[in-house]
Amino acid sequence: MPIIHVYVWKGFSNEAKKKAIAGITKLFAEIGVPAEAVEVIIHEVSKEDWGVGGEQASEKLKHIKPP
Amino acid sequence: MPIIHVYVWKGFSNEAKKKAIAGITKLFAEIGVPAEAVEVIIHEVSKEDWGVGGEQASEKLKHIKPP
Amino acid sequence: MPIIHVYVWKGFSNEAKKKAIAGITKLFAEIGVPAEAVEVIIHEVSKEDWGVGGEQASEKLKHIKPP
Amino acid sequence: MPIIHVYVWKGFSNEAKKKAIAGITKLFAEIGVPAEAVEVIIHEVSKEDWGVGGEQASEKLKHIKPP
Amino acid sequence: MPIIHVYVWKGFSNEAKKKAIAGITKLFAEIGVPAEAVEVIIHEVSKEDWGVGGEQASEKLKHIKPP
Amino acid sequence: MPIIHVYVWKGFSNEAKKKAIAGITKLFAEIGVPAEAVEVIIHEVSKEDWGVGGEQASEKLKHIKPP
Repeated sequence: MPIIHVYVWKGFSNEAKKKAIAGITKLFAEIGVPAEAVEVIIHEVSKEDWGVGGEQASEKLKHIKPP
Repeated sequence: MPIIHVYVWKGFSNEAKKKAIAGITKLFAEIGVPAEAVEVIIHEVSKEDWGVGGEQASEKLKHIKPP
Repeated sequence: MPIIHVYVWKGFSNEAKKKAIAGITKLFAEIGVPAEAVEVIIHEVSKEDWGVGGEQASEKLKHIKPP
Repeated sequence: MPIIHVYVWKGFSNEAKKKAIAGITKLFAEIGVPAEAVEVIIHEVSKEDWGVGGEQASEKLKHIKPP
Repeated sequence: MPIIHVYVWKGFSNEAKKKAIAGITKLFAEIGVPAEAVEVIIHEVSKEDWGVGGEQASEKLKHIKPP
Repeated sequence: MPIIHVYVWKGFSNEAKKKAIAGITKLFAEIGVPAEAVEVIIHEVSKEDWGVGGEQASEKLKHIKPP
C-alpha cells in the first residue's frame, strides 16, 4: 500500500507520466510510507470517453490538450 | 462529485457514449447535483478481457454486440 | 456488461440511490443493453476523503450536502 | 456479485487471461457464490503506465515480461 | 503487478476473505507471477448500494446472503 | 481531469489525507493541469481486506501502521 490509480486524457506525455509516478511516490514517502510500497497506475482515457457536465470532453473542451 | 466509471465492451458506439454521458448527467441533475459537477468516464474493455461465469465473453457471448 | 461504479459523498440518501440505480439501468436499456445485465455499484466517500482543487471537500465545500 | 477488476501489464497472454477468468470464478464458486454471478474484468496496462517505487516498470523492471 | 480489486457484498466473512486472497494469489503464481507481487484488495459494498437490473440487491435479492 | 483514486489502509490520519490531497494536486499543477480540475478520492481499506503475497495485511504486516 498505497495503490494509486490515476485517470488522465489520452496524450499525457511520457515526461508527464514519469513526473506523476516519481512525484506521487515521493509524496507518500514524505508522508511516511516506504517508496518501494507505492504503486501508481496511469490510465489514459480518450476525450471521447470522458464526460464533463453532460458532454464529451472532445467537444466541450476541444481546445485543451493534456500536458 | 459524483464521478461515474462506466465499463462496457469495446465497440460501444460514439452515439451510445454521448447518450450515456448526457443521460447519466441529466439523471444526477434531477437527483439534485449540479450537472457541471458530474464526470463520467467510459472504459471500453475487449470481450476477451471480460469474463462471465468463468468464460471470456468473446466465447460465451460470441454473437452479442455492444450497442 | 455494463458495470457502473458511482462515487458520491457519504450521506447520499437511500431515495437518491434508488433513483441512480433505476435511472442508469433504464438509460442503458434505452441504449440497447438488457436491463438485467446492468450492475450499478455505489461507493459513498467521506467529504474528508474527497479532494477538490487541493483541499478536502469537507473544508472547501463545507456547506454543500449530498442529495 | 462479485465483480473482480484485474490490472496486469500489457502483453498478458490470451492463455493467461482464460486461466485467470476460469480460476477466479472457480474459486468464488468454491467459496459459495454461483459461478454465473462472477464477472472478471481484465485491464492491461503498459509498463510505461505502471510505477513501482517511483519509476516506470518499463525502466525498473525492464527484463520482466508478463506471463 | 497484478493488482486485483474484488467487490463483494458487505458481510463477506473473514474466512471467505482469506480464501479469496490466498486463492487468487495462488492462481497468479501458477500463471507465472511471483506470489509476492500479487495484491488483492477487497471492497465490501452494502446491498443497498449494489444495483442489479435496476433494483437494489437489498430488495431484489433480499434472501441471498454473502458467503 | 485528472481523477486520482488512492487506496490506503484504514487508519490513514486526517493530516496524511490533507497532505496527500494537497501534494497530488500541486504535482499535477506543476505538470500543467489547472489545480481546480484535480480530484483526489481516498479509499480507506481494512488490513483484513488487503492481501499481500497471499495473506491478509492484518496478519502478514501486523506491526505496520498507516501514517
